[in-house]
Amino acid sequence: MNIFQRRESEIRSYSRSYPTIFERAEGARLFDREGRPYVDFFAGAGALNYGHNPPAMREALIAYLQEGGVLHSLDMATVAKQRFLERFEEVILEPRGMDYKLQFTAPTGTNAIEAALKLARRVTKRRNVIAFTNAYHGLSAGALAVTANRHFRHEAWTQRLDASFMPFDGYLGAGVDTLAYLRRSLSDTSSGIDLPAAIVLETVQAEGGVNIARTEWLQGVADLCQQHGILLIVDDIQVGCGRTGSFFSFERTGIRPDLIALSKSISGCGLPMSLLLIKPEHDQWKPGEHTGTFRGNNLAFVAATEALNYWATAEFTAQIAARGAHMSARLHALAAELPEIEAKPRGVGMIHGLEFKQASRCQAVASEAFQQGLIIEICGSGKNVLKFLPPLTIDEATLDAGIDIVRSAVLATAKGSPALTTAPSE
Amino acid sequence: MNIFQRRESEIRSYSRSYPTIFERAEGARLFDREGRPYVDFFAGAGALNYGHNPPAMREALIAYLQEGGVLHSLDMATVAKQRFLERFEEVILEPRGMDYKLQFTAPTGTNAIEAALKLARRVTKRRNVIAFTNAYHGLSAGALAVTANRHFRHEAWTQRLDASFMPFDGYLGAGVDTLAYLRRSLSDTSSGIDLPAAIVLETVQAEGGVNIARTEWLQGVADLCQQHGILLIVDDIQVGCGRTGSFFSFERTGIRPDLIALSKSISGCGLPMSLLLIKPEHDQWKPGEHTGTFRGNNLAFVAATEALNYWATAEFTAQIAARGAHMSARLHALAAELPEIEAKPRGVGMIHGLEFKQASRCQAVASEAFQQGLIIEICGSGKNVLKFLPPLTIDEATLDAGIDIVRSAVLATAKGSPALTTAPSE
Amino acid sequence: MNIFQRRESEIRSYSRSYPTIFERAEGARLFDREGRPYVDFFAGAGALNYGHNPPAMREALIAYLQEGGVLHSLDMATVAKQRFLERFEEVILEPRGMDYKLQFTAPTGTNAIEAALKLARRVTKRRNVIAFTNAYHGLSAGALAVTANRHFRHEAWTQRLDASFMPFDGYLGAGVDTLAYLRRSLSDTSSGIDLPAAIVLETVQAEGGVNIARTEWLQGVADLCQQHGILLIVDDIQVGCGRTGSFFSFERTGIRPDLIALSKSISGCGLPMSLLLIKPEHDQWKPGEHTGTFRGNNLAFVAATEALNYWATAEFTAQIAARGAHMSARLHALAAELPEIEAKPRGVGMIHGLEFKQASRCQAVASEAFQQGLIIEICGSGKNVLKFLPPLTIDEATLDAGIDIVRSAVLATAKGSPALTTAPSE
Amino acid sequence: MNIFQRRESEIRSYSRSYPTIFERAEGARLFDREGRPYVDFFAGAGALNYGHNPPAMREALIAYLQEGGVLHSLDMATVAKQRFLERFEEVILEPRGMDYKLQFTAPTGTNAIEAALKLARRVTKRRNVIAFTNAYHGLSAGALAVTANRHFRHEAWTQRLDASFMPFDGYLGAGVDTLAYLRRSLSDTSSGIDLPAAIVLETVQAEGGVNIARTEWLQGVADLCQQHGILLIVDDIQVGCGRTGSFFSFERTGIRPDLIALSKSISGCGLPMSLLLIKPEHDQWKPGEHTGTFRGNNLAFVAATEALNYWATAEFTAQIAARGAHMSARLHALAAELPEIEAKPRGVGMIHGLEFKQASRCQAVASEAFQQGLIIEICGSGKNVLKFLPPLTIDEATLDAGIDIVRSAVLATAKGSPALTTAPSE
Repeated sequence: MNIFQRRESEIRSYSRSYPTIFERAEGARLFDREGRPYVDFFAGAGALNYGHNPPAMREALIAYLQEGGVLHSLDMATVAKQRFLERFEEVILEPRGMDYKLQFTAPTGTNAIEAALKLARRVTKRRNVIAFTNAYHGLSAGALAVTANRHFRHEAWTQRLDASFMPFDGYLGAGVDTLAYLRRSLSDTSSGIDLPAAIVLETVQAEGGVNIARTEWLQGVADLCQQHGILLIVDDIQVGCGRTGSFFSFERTGIRPDLIALSKSISGCGLPMSLLLIKPEHDQWKPGEHTGTFRGNNLAFVAATEALNYWATAEFTAQIAARGAHMSARLHALAAELPEIEAKPRGVGMIHGLEFKQASRCQAVASEAFQQGLIIEICGSGKNVLKFLPPLTIDEATLDAGIDIVRSAVLATAKGSPALTTAPSE
Repeated sequence: MNIFQRRESEIRSYSRSYPTIFERAEGARLFDREGRPYVDFFAGAGALNYGHNPPAMREALIAYLQEGGVLHSLDMATVAKQRFLERFEEVILEPRGMDYKLQFTAPTGTNAIEAALKLARRVTKRRNVIAFTNAYHGLSAGALAVTANRHFRHEAWTQRLDASFMPFDGYLGAGVDTLAYLRRSLSDTSSGIDLPAAIVLETVQAEGGVNIARTEWLQGVADLCQQHGILLIVDDIQVGCGRTGSFFSFERTGIRPDLIALSKSISGCGLPMSLLLIKPEHDQWKPGEHTGTFRGNNLAFVAATEALNYWATAEFTAQIAARGAHMSARLHALAAELPEIEAKPRGVGMIHGLEFKQASRCQAVASEAFQQGLIIEICGSGKNVLKFLPPLTIDEATLDAGIDIVRSAVLATAKGSPALTTAPSE
Repeated sequence: MNIFQRRESEIRSYSRSYPTIFERAEGARLFDREGRPYVDFFAGAGALNYGHNPPAMREALIAYLQEGGVLHSLDMATVAKQRFLERFEEVILEPRGMDYKLQFTAPTGTNAIEAALKLARRVTKRRNVIAFTNAYHGLSAGALAVTANRHFRHEAWTQRLDASFMPFDGYLGAGVDTLAYLRRSLSDTSSGIDLPAAIVLETVQAEGGVNIARTEWLQGVADLCQQHGILLIVDDIQVGCGRTGSFFSFERTGIRPDLIALSKSISGCGLPMSLLLIKPEHDQWKPGEHTGTFRGNNLAFVAATEALNYWATAEFTAQIAARGAHMSARLHALAAELPEIEAKPRGVGMIHGLEFKQASRCQAVASEAFQQGLIIEICGSGKNVLKFLPPLTIDEATLDAGIDIVRSAVLATAKGSPALTTAPSE
Repeated sequence: MNIFQRRESEIRSYSRSYPTIFERAEGARLFDREGRPYVDFFAGAGALNYGHNPPAMREALIAYLQEGGVLHSLDMATVAKQRFLERFEEVILEPRGMDYKLQFTAPTGTNAIEAALKLARRVTKRRNVIAFTNAYHGLSAGALAVTANRHFRHEAWTQRLDASFMPFDGYLGAGVDTLAYLRRSLSDTSSGIDLPAAIVLETVQAEGGVNIARTEWLQGVADLCQQHGILLIVDDIQVGCGRTGSFFSFERTGIRPDLIALSKSISGCGLPMSLLLIKPEHDQWKPGEHTGTFRGNNLAFVAATEALNYWATAEFTAQIAARGAHMSARLHALAAELPEIEAKPRGVGMIHGLEFKQASRCQAVASEAFQQGLIIEICGSGKNVLKFLPPLTIDEATLDAGIDIVRSAVLATAKGSPALTTAPSE
């Protein structure tokens, strides 16, 4: 029995889905202890949009360590933090005409959501929050209350903390306008839905199954927020930082959320860091009301500052568009080529999903793909959507290599390969 | 207006208490942008027990980066994680005869507490949790419910999530046995206190004012837990990892908590990392039920493995004892020398508090000390306790230098220095 | 200033809508202190289905008082209670082949709902409960959690007690099948809707605006309950006891709820009394777990026993059908005659609603009707539905007299009568 | 199997403790179907302070029924309600210089508490409420949250609704001042006890074991309420209406609660009725926010108006004092005579408790007493306190007869009578 089985809690999950011990990583590839390479279509669940160990970031980290830079600073001011703030203002906020304050929360996405919910409740003096079917916002008690998946909502510990769930765009099928129900629930005083402090949403539900909200739906939600004095919180933790093609996932819609949660790829190379962007008029915090020991993870600031260089020109955006189009084309071709799996591809930018009719086949494909050297995750409440989340920096050849493995795994599993164990979701 | 004022949220706190911009750090000293040194008696609120940038850890981190080690791995198995697990078993668990499973939670203390509360509720099928006056366990909704300080408990967002507060040891004065009330509350079916899933406590309340529970009180609580089938959760986030003299803070009492939360100094040099130790019979998690993107912060594992070397021999323990005794002697001498401040020193290992009669004087001393080159925090609900939390690795000369500054600041503030702004607690 | 203004709380409501002091009542008529008669189309919000002071009940009460019968008995056995139980079994349960246990809750509808929710949670070991838009189940904290109207859900006191709201039949317009959303929410593990202990509903939402669920919708809900092990609670407090044509409102659908709440007209003449009917397999209470001082209101038992005589033959049912048909015909005629009010009549049995396009007109009509000697209430979240709820025992002439007043009030308000103050809902 | 066993829910309780079927009642005596008399030392758990069927009330009820008075009126104004209001003002409020508004809640004590908690939360804009060990305030969800007894607090349904429990006067023994803990909890910002909207208490905890708060303790609580802007709610449901010697139980202390809940004996003869008395400055309700069908139980108003005659002169107060002194003397004599039961008598006015060392003996005594013709209840969380709650109108001979039965039952059970089944509490 190895040390993981002997000493790690039964809660361990991905080490079961991807049963090897990883050692090194570079770009879009991981290598295990035996030196075996794996193409990475998982990218740390969105934390590695710039790939593993990007050279510029790695060098910046080494230099910082060698200089004896401050590593841990709570929320004291440091040079590393100052540089990040300045660069974020220069590269992200100013070009987009966005005026936001930054809150460095504890360095987890769930903590940024906790902060957003607290702040929205303070600002509006309301308690209820509306979230959507298939939402994933984190697992600490406040964030869990707006996370939809029963897998995480055990009766023993879940409290329905002033949260109401509404159907996401498309949830009831193409013919049903879920915005109408939301609109009615807000305006009708007998809907049972207390007027909320906030509506929290992912513009693309990643864990939830690569569900892409239409622009007009998102605009409709934003309009309702404005009409009713509700704060709109966009959780851009998984699909921000370029995943959908622009730095923020909502840029395609023109909306301006009141609060924006960022984490995962904000630090550039997978170091823990989280941010809450706040419209200045909502920045009603008192000093120190929501704190945490690791808000000042300076290594993360160093890498994050470096990562912002990707956004200094339009080049990177163009590259994502090209790679995304290529992914889309290949996945549609795959679906067309293999009609027996009845797969439906969908996606935007460089997040794509391939929905299988049968969850067991989907899981078998993921397992087989791992055997063939590809790390890919399953998502969706039916555990039947293969999620394509390669680094945004992947080259086309590696992208093709990964998709080729998926194709091969589909074929292999068609031959009667036994369904393998479920890959639990992140 | 600088970038911090312009772009950082009003919630910023320590950057107000310590108004400079830090750049480098080494051992027990921080240096700001102008090169000015500060003795650090704060140690990242307990995250830097081994000081800033310990050379061995720094070198290990640089080497790992140079080798292209995996940085981010969710909860996949990695070589860096394997080494940590093996070393933790070898150096910490086995010598103490402790059989525990390790859960790598999201890398914040509050998340380890969230996990502990969830698990205790699952195992016991009860919902209530007992916490204590002055407790600080974190600020995400689940942990906040067991955090006592109203500063963090705004009406707008706090939910009383199945938590009951009881008086901590000494809370009602020396003459009142608070254990009696706890015992009665558990055994009397009409106490209003629902039989809890867990009792969660810090053996020394650090944020709460350096309140040290007596051994017999802690043993009494542990006995009550056993009698009533309650899980005992020790939050060793701030006072574990050697702070009180032994690796775990409860070693002096002989108790064996059901769940132990570690964070802060577990990674050795302030990188985000958290652990929940679980008695095997309570490890009833299902895979993936409580997850988080940054559970696999491999840089932290690398440094953490290196940090465990401090515990491989008895030498470090002896050194903490010696330094702690020196601190105690100096603080008692200080109190005796300056009777007009009516200061009461207390402490264990290398966490000490100096309680002032007047909060304004205490705050003035902390501010003046910063002017003189010392970083020191105020704690306690009355904001009148100066908390001495130097790195455990500090040499005696630097320790003396810091205490000398406190002495000097006390004298300076006696001359009628205006009371300075409050230092908000972490 | 009269005593009501001087001493009664500002919460007083109907005394504002019907500004006179009532003294006597008989059948379908109330008389005020000046002897002025009012036709009663309100019937105590459904508590007076048999009219005011039915002679047989009144005589039974007088006789009981004269004999010195026990008035108050908590839940001790009394002869009056025994007689009620025997008669209820004989007249109601046995002819319908219904095997239910009776729980005498505290004598308010809200308390029967509190009991039902507790029991459902105990039986299923789940916490969530699904209720519907426009639901009204009472105002104590447990029942309020499943009551939809924001008028009652002040932020200061409402807790979202494990309740999820779903759209009632017809809520999203004729084209949208709300059952589909409910079905999906239960079967999809990522709907955000925790699998509930119970679904609680009114088959006709009276306070909510006379919203009548279709038989197939109710059957669909009952089927879903069975599939998912959910208890179906029918709140027959306002529309039971014959209001819709049969003793229970759900008899038209063939469903067999797990729990049935009765109150209001169960005592026959408006005395406080409530019942929870429980399928024997769900009767898992332990003695005394849900109690209340006034569970043994023996005067109510005496009148209730007498009231059951109405159900001993088929005659009463036939009479309700006839009167209901007459009401329907007259209201449709009225709507047709006065197209300018764009009124939509709807109803079943002897509960009918007349929905106005404009709430102000509807309110003006109710006020004018009161001036002309009719007591009638407004319902619905838009406060634009006139609710016709006469005693079931009303004779056709009085029924016509009341409807004539409505017609006259519609005409009067058309002439430019100022809109009068809103009649708050019960 | 009789109809109660066949059709009444397993929750039935007193019908098990007092296994007979009652038929008539008069003064301090109940009679069962066989004509067997029982002295009543239970008095409807305090609902029958004026005894069963007081002739004046009975006659008033019969007259009202004969005149065709309105029975049910929601909260419309009626002559019967007007008379009650006028008489209450004249006899109760004015002589005591008390300026309060009256809210007629749903006719159960628990509903008056629900209303009080809602109002306190609205007025103060705070959520927490402090209640005490052994408190009993009712069982609907809001009231249950401030009821201490675990017997009623099943994990399945209890929500800890913003309630904190504190030790009642004497809870920690004679030597411990529980007021000190309350004071500290309110003033210390790190007590974990959120500053509450209200403190709710019974001046004598009846269900809780006849625990009598000392005058100085009650005054201390009232002072703390004033200092912190907390509303003081006195639950006088069981011990108001003369039980402790004066109309309100707190008259002995001089305090003026912000809100006072009355029920049980307020209607004089056990008919459902409840009141909330509100200081005018706190009467911030909006019309109809907290309603209920049976707020207008006019029979109760008729009897209640009649009952107020007892308070028109000082005679009744004197009589209670005399009877109470007699009870006290007899119970002390009994305890002294039978030292082997180690019974401790305590009481005030006409509520007395006899605490047994052994619960089994106490229960055996109650059962044996019933066999001998006495109805008496057990209270206290240890189920070891015999509660003496005779009608206030009892004559001395009947009082003695009842106490004689207790004495006889103590003797009988000493001879080795098998312990009988537990009498569940109300």
